[in-house]
Amino acid sequence: MTSSDTPPRGPVDSSRVPRYAGPATFARLPRLDETGGETDVAVVGVPFDTGVSYRPGARFGGNAIREASRLLRPYNPAQDASPFALAQVADAGDIAVNPFDIGEAVETVQEAASGILDSGARMMTLGGDHTVALPLLRAVARRHGPVALLHFDAHLDTWDTYFGAAYTHGTPFRRAVEEGLLDTSALSHVGIRGPLYGKRDLDDDAKMGFGIVTAADVLRRGVDEVADQLRQRIGDRPLYVSVDIDVLDPAHAPGTGTPEAGGLTSRELLEILRGLADCRVVSADLVEVAPAYDHAEITAVAASHTAYELTTLMTRQIAAARETPPDARRGAD
Amino acid sequence: MTSSDTPPRGPVDSSRVPRYAGPATFARLPRLDETGGETDVAVVGVPFDTGVSYRPGARFGGNAIREASRLLRPYNPAQDASPFALAQVADAGDIAVNPFDIGEAVETVQEAASGILDSGARMMTLGGDHTVALPLLRAVARRHGPVALLHFDAHLDTWDTYFGAAYTHGTPFRRAVEEGLLDTSALSHVGIRGPLYGKRDLDDDAKMGFGIVTAADVLRRGVDEVADQLRQRIGDRPLYVSVDIDVLDPAHAPGTGTPEAGGLTSRELLEILRGLADCRVVSADLVEVAPAYDHAEITAVAASHTAYELTTLMTRQIAAARETPPDARRGAD
Amino acid sequence: MTSSDTPPRGPVDSSRVPRYAGPATFARLPRLDETGGETDVAVVGVPFDTGVSYRPGARFGGNAIREASRLLRPYNPAQDASPFALAQVADAGDIAVNPFDIGEAVETVQEAASGILDSGARMMTLGGDHTVALPLLRAVARRHGPVALLHFDAHLDTWDTYFGAAYTHGTPFRRAVEEGLLDTSALSHVGIRGPLYGKRDLDDDAKMGFGIVTAADVLRRGVDEVADQLRQRIGDRPLYVSVDIDVLDPAHAPGTGTPEAGGLTSRELLEILRGLADCRVVSADLVEVAPAYDHAEITAVAASHTAYELTTLMTRQIAAARETPPDARRGAD
Amino acid sequence: MTSSDTPPRGPVDSSRVPRYAGPATFARLPRLDETGGETDVAVVGVPFDTGVSYRPGARFGGNAIREASRLLRPYNPAQDASPFALAQVADAGDIAVNPFDIGEAVETVQEAASGILDSGARMMTLGGDHTVALPLLRAVARRHGPVALLHFDAHLDTWDTYFGAAYTHGTPFRRAVEEGLLDTSALSHVGIRGPLYGKRDLDDDAKMGFGIVTAADVLRRGVDEVADQLRQRIGDRPLYVSVDIDVLDPAHAPGTGTPEAGGLTSRELLEILRGLADCRVVSADLVEVAPAYDHAEITAVAASHTAYELTTLMTRQIAAARETPPDARRGAD
Amino acid sequence: MTSSDTPPRGPVDSSRVPRYAGPATFARLPRLDETGGETDVAVVGVPFDTGVSYRPGARFGGNAIREASRLLRPYNPAQDASPFALAQVADAGDIAVNPFDIGEAVETVQEAASGILDSGARMMTLGGDHTVALPLLRAVARRHGPVALLHFDAHLDTWDTYFGAAYTHGTPFRRAVEEGLLDTSALSHVGIRGPLYGKRDLDDDAKMGFGIVTAADVLRRGVDEVADQLRQRIGDRPLYVSVDIDVLDPAHAPGTGTPEAGGLTSRELLEILRGLADCRVVSADLVEVAPAYDHAEITAVAASHTAYELTTLMTRQIAAARETPPDARRGAD
Amino acid sequence: MTSSDTPPRGPVDSSRVPRYAGPATFARLPRLDETGGETDVAVVGVPFDTGVSYRPGARFGGNAIREASRLLRPYNPAQDASPFALAQVADAGDIAVNPFDIGEAVETVQEAASGILDSGARMMTLGGDHTVALPLLRAVARRHGPVALLHFDAHLDTWDTYFGAAYTHGTPFRRAVEEGLLDTSALSHVGIRGPLYGKRDLDDDAKMGFGIVTAADVLRRGVDEVADQLRQRIGDRPLYVSVDIDVLDPAHAPGTGTPEAGGLTSRELLEILRGLADCRVVSADLVEVAPAYDHAEITAVAASHTAYELTTLMTRQIAAARETPPDARRGAD
Repeated sequence: MTSSDTPPRGPVDSSRVPRYAGPATFARLPRLDETGGETDVAVVGVPFDTGVSYRPGARFGGNAIREASRLLRPYNPAQDASPFALAQVADAGDIAVNPFDIGEAVETVQEAASGILDSGARMMTLGGDHTVALPLLRAVARRHGPVALLHFDAHLDTWDTYFGAAYTHGTPFRRAVEEGLLDTSALSHVGIRGPLYGKRDLDDDAKMGFGIVTAADVLRRGVDEVADQLRQRIGDRPLYVSVDIDVLDPAHAPGTGTPEAGGLTSRELLEILRGLADCRVVSADLVEVAPAYDHAEITAVAASHTAYELTTLMTRQIAAARETPPDARRGAD
Repeated sequence: MTSSDTPPRGPVDSSRVPRYAGPATFARLPRLDETGGETDVAVVGVPFDTGVSYRPGARFGGNAIREASRLLRPYNPAQDASPFALAQVADAGDIAVNPFDIGEAVETVQEAASGILDSGARMMTLGGDHTVALPLLRAVARRHGPVALLHFDAHLDTWDTYFGAAYTHGTPFRRAVEEGLLDTSALSHVGIRGPLYGKRDLDDDAKMGFGIVTAADVLRRGVDEVADQLRQRIGDRPLYVSVDIDVLDPAHAPGTGTPEAGGLTSRELLEILRGLADCRVVSADLVEVAPAYDHAEITAVAASHTAYELTTLMTRQIAAARETPPDARRGAD
Repeated sequence: MTSSDTPPRGPVDSSRVPRYAGPATFARLPRLDETGGETDVAVVGVPFDTGVSYRPGARFGGNAIREASRLLRPYNPAQDASPFALAQVADAGDIAVNPFDIGEAVETVQEAASGILDSGARMMTLGGDHTVALPLLRAVARRHGPVALLHFDAHLDTWDTYFGAAYTHGTPFRRAVEEGLLDTSALSHVGIRGPLYGKRDLDDDAKMGFGIVTAADVLRRGVDEVADQLRQRIGDRPLYVSVDIDVLDPAHAPGTGTPEAGGLTSRELLEILRGLADCRVVSADLVEVAPAYDHAEITAVAASHTAYELTTLMTRQIAAARETPPDARRGAD
Repeated sequence: MTSSDTPPRGPVDSSRVPRYAGPATFARLPRLDETGGETDVAVVGVPFDTGVSYRPGARFGGNAIREASRLLRPYNPAQDASPFALAQVADAGDIAVNPFDIGEAVETVQEAASGILDSGARMMTLGGDHTVALPLLRAVARRHGPVALLHFDAHLDTWDTYFGAAYTHGTPFRRAVEEGLLDTSALSHVGIRGPLYGKRDLDDDAKMGFGIVTAADVLRRGVDEVADQLRQRIGDRPLYVSVDIDVLDPAHAPGTGTPEAGGLTSRELLEILRGLADCRVVSADLVEVAPAYDHAEITAVAASHTAYELTTLMTRQIAAARETPPDARRGAD
Repeated sequence: MTSSDTPPRGPVDSSRVPRYAGPATFARLPRLDETGGETDVAVVGVPFDTGVSYRPGARFGGNAIREASRLLRPYNPAQDASPFALAQVADAGDIAVNPFDIGEAVETVQEAASGILDSGARMMTLGGDHTVALPLLRAVARRHGPVALLHFDAHLDTWDTYFGAAYTHGTPFRRAVEEGLLDTSALSHVGIRGPLYGKRDLDDDAKMGFGIVTAADVLRRGVDEVADQLRQRIGDRPLYVSVDIDVLDPAHAPGTGTPEAGGLTSRELLEILRGLADCRVVSADLVEVAPAYDHAEITAVAASHTAYELTTLMTRQIAAARETPPDARRGAD
Repeated sequence: MTSSDTPPRGPVDSSRVPRYAGPATFARLPRLDETGGETDVAVVGVPFDTGVSYRPGARFGGNAIREASRLLRPYNPAQDASPFALAQVADAGDIAVNPFDIGEAVETVQEAASGILDSGARMMTLGGDHTVALPLLRAVARRHGPVALLHFDAHLDTWDTYFGAAYTHGTPFRRAVEEGLLDTSALSHVGIRGPLYGKRDLDDDAKMGFGIVTAADVLRRGVDEVADQLRQRIGDRPLYVSVDIDVLDPAHAPGTGTPEAGGLTSRELLEILRGLADCRVVSADLVEVAPAYDHAEITAVAASHTAYELTTLMTRQIAAARETPPDARRGAD
């Protein structure tokens, strides 16, 4: 964690360097080595997509999001906050993982994530496919204990195995429940839709403790009611937010691997996230952006905005925690 | 119609054969020859687009929808039904029609459709352009008498002639009314929008008996109110559902021939269809998917989900009818 | 201004000439030289994009919108009006501007616009980037005095300078306020969203007199409430409407230069415009369509429909004014 | 035919009007009405594609070629000629044909073409699919008698019928031979490749009098030897040149309906055409550009250059004929 | 192997069923079950791409090639042969392999291939990534002993391991040499180009016995000289041909995973293959078509033509062998 | 210039970090700050495209080339050299230039380039549009005196002014001749083709001293003869190589602003460059890559290979110079 004495190092000044110029770190923020290896929030890429069951390509997702994030500016009016001034956010680059061995890849991610979290930083991970949520949750739980989970996705991702493989992009949350990484009193899926293998998929999911807000629920209830409900369920538990970009309708996110019609608009997703202002987001991921299927970067732009809202939530928390007298603070973050 | 004694043959098991492998029948269902030529619902392609007035290409639509339908799974949670277990659904392949002679094409479709309907099966037709609705309605009316029509489209398709041609994608429903194929007490367009040739277009349409729910009406009233209104209008009449994919906004369905801004979202379309659970859908079509203008299959995915909902409606009806004592059943299906 | 004695010359008859045939004037309307150089509304292109800060390409926007406008038909049911019969609308072609010198380009546009407005015509300008709004407003204000402004955009466009340049696509409305071209009691942005440079951006904007309806506001309040509020603010002031196509979500308008997630649907934009029926639209622009990033013309189609609604508003006003006894009319247009 | 007393009216001056501005006539040349209805070479579009057997879309081809032709400049260094100064070339717009009736369409094209040729102009026709070559050849033969044919294509286009239809894009040259429109001593295909239905296709073709230069022949012999051979075969016969853009490899012309691997490069096609300097090209067509399958206009650019070379050949001939003492001239052109 | 008594069952008749209609088996040939499970050449898909080091997506390659192969006709004029009449060619569908475990996938392919080869059929395999060449060669060598290899590729594919993985798309031929599957006196790469890791890559490759014809060599020497040289090197050894589509220039094959500039044209590749008429091709593969990066099917079309030439080579051999008196034949094929 | 004592720092090891992971410096080489600010060859981006006359977008070119250069490996077999081992090559990032003022941009580039060249490094500049060649040549001439120029392009780029602007992408070499930056005894264009404004374009160009090798010349003479001729003309003069990617045919480089049919293949371009082994390349640029028009990165891949060959030429020279006894060396580099 960075010292709160020196002000955070912010993005490149776009009045001097045009947004399309220079390297594409997330939001044109400094690299982790440029902040002396210290940061409050580390934006990390995990270029890995060997866990997918349909269209691969999310290995290129993180860098596509970074490229689209050139358009992000430093003040977030929707949350009335300047996230990169509230705390240090730095681009920690990619975790290099083996594309040929899922087991080894999962271990590499877990190890790297633990290193980052141990430094006191929170993680804003850019996938990669959803397989990576498992090692990320392992690292998070190692530090915070079982966490609440808010999962935006078209799919449940609580399936068991596929072709005998335990670790795939359809199974991370079942594994996480089995491994005790999640606080099963506060598990929510948002945006679920589309056909399943059987009714048992829903039964199993419910038994693990998940509540479901379908994509149609969001249409019927509106974003504010949904955000309220989620906030109440989460309470002040440490929260991990996992966003599969296919929570958005294919119109908003064509660049993904298992598209399902009838999804959320990007406006709905962003508004729900903005409604979580008081939640203790300890880390988050954004996965399944497959640029080969994107057009004009619309998926990557939506993803970069999503990561920006998540980052704002984290930095607001960090800043608020710093203003709280130490004896009144609750734990590590 | 298949016997209800043996369980229907379902899709290929995707825990053994990955979804991207093998031939692309609709939803990876068996071909009609694999079910002994018998089925309850026949999914049929009509690769024909000589009736279009702007962008051609819908001749490739049926196979594009089949390709996208690889992602469909066997349980439909939105209708709480496993459509392919409730009744036999099989892919009956394409009707081979002459691209150079609209009149001959219309006859070929009518004949083939009559053959399928005479076997007792319902049809889920994948277009092709909207011209094909006329011969399909002829075959349906021949079996069921005049049917109620629920027509999702940006356009009225009740124009008279274009360049002297009576059979085009803009005229099927005027012809159908003229030929007495429709129950004019229950005709509805949903999703209408965009400029017309003149106010008379609306007057003529109303005189034929059509009610209109515009795309803006769907926004203002919401999907539940719209579905309620449609259900009331339809009642227990035998119903034909015709979906032109351009009922969706171009954002959701770029792959079509005469796009109009301001359309429905795929979520709205799917929810309205799901709201028709008690309607007696005797057959349905889904037309005007033009893959050359699609991107990342988003149009074809939306179309495949639409056909899936329609198929679920039909199989639920079939299963319900089977459970009804014969003397309590009503007529043909 | 054309004489009201002869009926306006309308679009090419598409029952004789298919919509895809012939040259692509806006809505297949006559060229200005075909109406004897006289028109009530002049559709004018400004192929210029040197003022952009991110993706260029809007120099091709006007012709792309014209190409997509082949699908527009002459009767607008949403406003129950046949705009091209109510008044003469003609395509006045493009203003040829220097791509290498912004200052000169601004002057050329101003001069050409003044010439058109002086003839008594209103302008429906097709951009080009948003830089062109400044010279257009100069010409409009020269004729009508300070005008009310209704500005649809993801961005405020009231920034000051960028790389020392005063005239760019991010600055036209600050310049317009500074130059006294706008009636600061009736300035509205609609569709604003996305990150800013700082909170001061909002403060400055408010000081200039702008009211903001964010994209999220449109979702929460609905199009009718928004339109009502705008209409009240505008009253009977002469109104200039400026539409940056990026007011739409990238799902609806991928073909633009600075996309922001979370935007309006095309249905919302069109409905809000239709809600402005009584407003005195003296001229309008539609800018920032960058076809290189479009897909299947969906951006251009949405833009052509937007221009069609704006044109309908203008021709309805013109027709209404003609029916008003001269002594009851109000001033300049 | 225009008088040779006044200099031809050339393209728009691109030092005053940027190439991307203004309407897209071919090479930014004047419309036929702007030259008083007189021209030496008429560039004519035929937006028709109902004769295709695979991917439709060539109805949009002519306007796509015009759009790409904005980049053409007035001096052709490869032929050392300024074609638009040597003779009047004007854009005569599109022939409006019925998309629903091939027979009627063929008649309309024949009639319109006869009208143009009767005025003394040569035609540079932009397709549309290859069906249109038949009515064009009828009109040409009516004026010039049987003509030599130089046919660039991947396919023979001398098939008989398809689905019972005599007039399709695969049959024009068989019909033309049958109707006596061609001088069977000078018929050549260039660029032929790809699978056929049977050896008889070749036998039939040879019996009609065609010689074949395959795409592989062009690779082995080189463009100069091929051009020499063609020139010798053609001699001083009146020559019609028909170019199906699929003569190019799909790498060079993806935007077409029946692509075949192994084709010519655009450089080879252009060089062979340039080698025909002394041939009496009485008219020419360029067909089968299907923009929906094009990318970044590469097909349309290649097509526009091809039409430019053909136009240069025609204007050089016209200019040369004008310099020849009348009693030394041979016939009408 | 099929009996030579009954004529082979050929493709669907496209004078009755348009090419775009019906299911997409390779070249519209019968499925293996339609020929009673017997065939001379089995076209087999292997949808697998977990072995790639850069862009994944070749899992969709086989079906994309089949889709593009709708345009193949039954007579091959370049080889003066009707391949599907000379011997039975049937589409044997896809081998379902585990995407999550390379080792298991390799075994599954080997087993399935052995089954097919044991039936006496030759294989025309459609990848999939190049990893699959190893199990295919194992099965081939099991039947034929060490075979000559003709390898078309931009890359050597004789690297050792990558991230510790022995079986990837960059290593199959090193493994094959190590396992004694290849006749090291007749190993050729054609089309090699682009940067390597070090000079040792070339040294190692040469030590294994490979000769290299670079892409530049093909330009300098011409296709005939190259084919002659290859034919001499191969002699009458049983030959396996492996074609990585990236042997083509990215202009001709954008749809692939590791593109390298400076490649072959499709015309060159096809001509070299046609020059191998007397070679004993015992089986072949075509790999690395990644449709997500393709445009307008140009890669898939080139691939389908390549597979067509390879199939023609095999059927000509089979037919020739059948005409040879048994005692003059050499072994099983 | 780096010391020759320590070995150069090479690219990221792709056996540890997959090629798609990590930031996209050119060829995954170190950033200039990672080599202590010292390098022998600096790869520099100039994101600027305000000088273009048709399609803009080259401002995104440099980063697109870097992204595609991930596939470059460290050994160049075509030149038998490991360029990044022979001398230090580092990515010096982008020069931030004003998009709104061409004059200022030209000055900024000149200044930045002078700084780099003064450090003793050579420049491999990635455009941006061709305007940037002028300030680069100014900086080069300031250090080396008038240099020989080898210019690959479809266009002459020796036009005078356009819309009154002296500095555009069509004028750099006329300006350079006027300013005495070039050794007019050794000026060559390669790849020229397409229409011009008039014959005078060629005359003017010849008067400035340019020799032309057209694209058709390359086809007729072959790459070796062309390279020989160029080498002889250049001799041992210090040489600047400027490559406009539109020298390639649009099939190979769709992603550019002013495409012309009939261009070079990437194989030809690369082979000609490889033929310049003994030339003293003091700096080079590669311009006009416009990614918005690219597909599957084929233009960017071709560009990255081109820059790789140029870089190899430079590092071979540097290494050779180092091995030459100081008193035998010729001048500054």
